Amino acid sequence: MIYSILGTGAIGGYYGSLLARSGRQVNFLLHSDYEHVREHGLLVKSVRGDFSLPHVNAFSSADQMPKSDIVIVALKTTRQALLREMLPPLLKSDTLVLLIQNGIGVEADVEAMIPSVHLAAGLAFICASKTEPGIVRHMDFGALTIAPFHGDEPHIEALMADLAEAGVEVHLADYQTGRWQKAMWNMPFNGLTVALHCQTDQLLRHPSTEALVHDMMGEVLAAAKAWGVTRLSEENINTLMEMTRAMTPYKPSMRLDWDFHRPMEIEFIYSRPIEEAAKKGVAMPRLQMLERQLLFLQNNNL
Amino acid sequence: MIYSILGTGAIGGYYGSLLARSGRQVNFLLHSDYEHVREHGLLVKSVRGDFSLPHVNAFSSADQMPKSDIVIVALKTTRQALLREMLPPLLKSDTLVLLIQNGIGVEADVEAMIPSVHLAAGLAFICASKTEPGIVRHMDFGALTIAPFHGDEPHIEALMADLAEAGVEVHLADYQTGRWQKAMWNMPFNGLTVALHCQTDQLLRHPSTEALVHDMMGEVLAAAKAWGVTRLSEENINTLMEMTRAMTPYKPSMRLDWDFHRPMEIEFIYSRPIEEAAKKGVAMPRLQMLERQLLFLQNNNL
Repeated sequence: MIYSILGTGAIGGYYGSLLARSGRQVNFLLHSDYEHVREHGLLVKSVRGDFSLPHVNAFSSADQMPKSDIVIVALKTTRQALLREMLPPLLKSDTLVLLIQNGIGVEADVEAMIPSVHLAAGLAFICASKTEPGIVRHMDFGALTIAPFHGDEPHIEALMADLAEAGVEVHLADYQTGRWQKAMWNMPFNGLTVALHCQTDQLLRHPSTEALVHDMMGEVLAAAKAWGVTRLSEENINTLMEMTRAMTPYKPSMRLDWDFHRPMEIEFIYSRPIEEAAKKGVAMPRLQMLERQLLFLQNNNL
Repeated sequence: MIYSILGTGAIGGYYGSLLARSGRQVNFLLHSDYEHVREHGLLVKSVRGDFSLPHVNAFSSADQMPKSDIVIVALKTTRQALLREMLPPLLKSDTLVLLIQNGIGVEADVEAMIPSVHLAAGLAFICASKTEPGIVRHMDFGALTIAPFHGDEPHIEALMADLAEAGVEVHLADYQTGRWQKAMWNMPFNGLTVALHCQTDQLLRHPSTEALVHDMMGEVLAAAKAWGVTRLSEENINTLMEMTRAMTPYKPSMRLDWDFHRPMEIEFIYSRPIEEAAKKGVAMPRLQMLERQLLFLQNNNL
C-alpha cells in the first residue's frame, strides 16, 4: 500500500508521520517546508512522546509523486480548487482518497471534479498545530474516524488496520453521522474564538457564551437529524461541552488562520453546512450570523 | 413650567440647552461636570450652529432641585437604580417624567418604583456626544418623538409646544410604536459596532453584515407586531437602512461606552426587549446571540 499525503501541515504531518514510522511507504507533498523537510525530515513533538523521521519521501509537486493506493488530503479547504490538478495523476482505479478536512461539502465537490473517485471523510479529533517548518506539535487526543462517502469504498479495512498499527485510535462511522458530529464541535468553536477573540475555555467559563455554544450545537443537531442521522442526540452536545471544558485552553484552526491573517475556512465550516441544512428546511440563525460576522471580519483581516 | 434635566450628557445637555436658550426655566443635574458647568455654563457645538449658555442652573444633587413640572431623564440606563432616590423629591402630583433613554422596559421599571408617576418615552433621533466637560457635540438630526406611557399623561401638549419653540422637530407616537421603532435601529447597530469593532457605515458596506442588520431589524419588527404595533412594516426597515447609509459614519452610544470601558446598556437595549418579545412567543435568535456576545465582551472590558 502506497500512501500520499497532500498537505503536510499539522494533520497531514501527524498521521503521515505515524504511518511512516510504522513502516508504511508514505509520500509527503510539501509546499513552503519542502527544502527544510527534504534536508531534515519531520519531527513530531507529541504528548505521547516525541519522535523524528530524519528521512521522508518529500515532494514539492503532486505530479512527481507515484500513483498511490490511499491519498490523504489534509489541505486547508481554502485551497480546495488545487485538487482538480493534484489528484488525477495519483489515482489508480481503486485509489481511496481520504479527506481529513474541515466542514461539510468537500467530498461532494471532489466527486464533482472527478466523478470516478473513491472517497472517505476523515474526522480527526485532535489538538495539533504546525508553527515551525517540519515540526508538528501534538497537544492532545488523536483519534481518527473514517466515514466512507458512499458506504462501500475500497481499502477502508486496510487503511483502518494500518492506522491502528501506527498507533492511531481509529473508528468507522457512516458519512452523515461523521461529518455532522464533527461540525457540532467545529461550527461553534472555530468561529466564536475568532469573533470574540478568545480561546475555547473562556467561551465555556462565561454563562452567556456557554448557552450560545449549546444553542449552536443544537442547530447542528437539528440539521443532522434532518439529514437522517439517528445516532446523535442532546447527550452528544453535553459530552462535547464536558470534553471541551476538560481540554487544555485551545485555539482552533480558524483562530490560528485569523491570527496569521490567512483566509479562514468559512465556506466549508459555515456556508456549505448552512446550505445543506436549508435544503432540509432547517434554519441555523445563530450559525449564519456567525458566518456573516466572520465574512465581515475576514474582509478587514487579509 | 419648570424643567429638570437628570443626566446632563449629550442628550440631556442638548435638549435642555435648547429649552433654556428659548427662555424656559431649566435645572440641570450634573455629576462629574458640575464644577465646570457651574463656572463656565454649557456649550453646544451643533451642525445647526454653535451656541453657549454662560450661566445655567446647575445642581450636583437631585434633592437640592426644586419640584418640577417636567423631569427629563437622560441618564444611562446602567444607572437606572438611582431614580428610586432621585425622582420623588422632584415630583408634584402632575409632574411628567420623560425618559429619553435607550431600550425597552425603562418606563415599566420606573412605574414599579413610583406607582403614581406620570411617564412618557422620549425617542431621540440624533447623533450627539459629550466628550469634554460642559461641551455637547451635535453631529446630525435631532428630532424627538414623545410617546406617553399610558396614553393620557399630563403636560404632553405643553412639552411639545415648548420643544417646538426651542427648535426641536417634535413628534407624537403611541408608546409601543415609539419604543419598538427606536429599538429597530438601536438593537442591530449598537451591539454590532461593538462586537465587530466598527462604525455604522462599514456594517452596511459589506453584504454579509448588511443582511445581518436587515434580519435583526426583522426580528424587532416581528416583536413589535406581536405587541400590537400596526404602523411598522418592512418598509421601515428599508428606510432605516437607507437613512443610516446616508449618515456620517457613526459610533452609537454603546460603542462609545465600550471604547471608554464603561458598562454597556445591554439590559435595556437587549435583554429586556428579548424578554418582552418572548412573552408574545417571538424568538430573537440573532439579537439574543448578540446580547450573549456583548455580555461576554463586557466581562473582559470593565
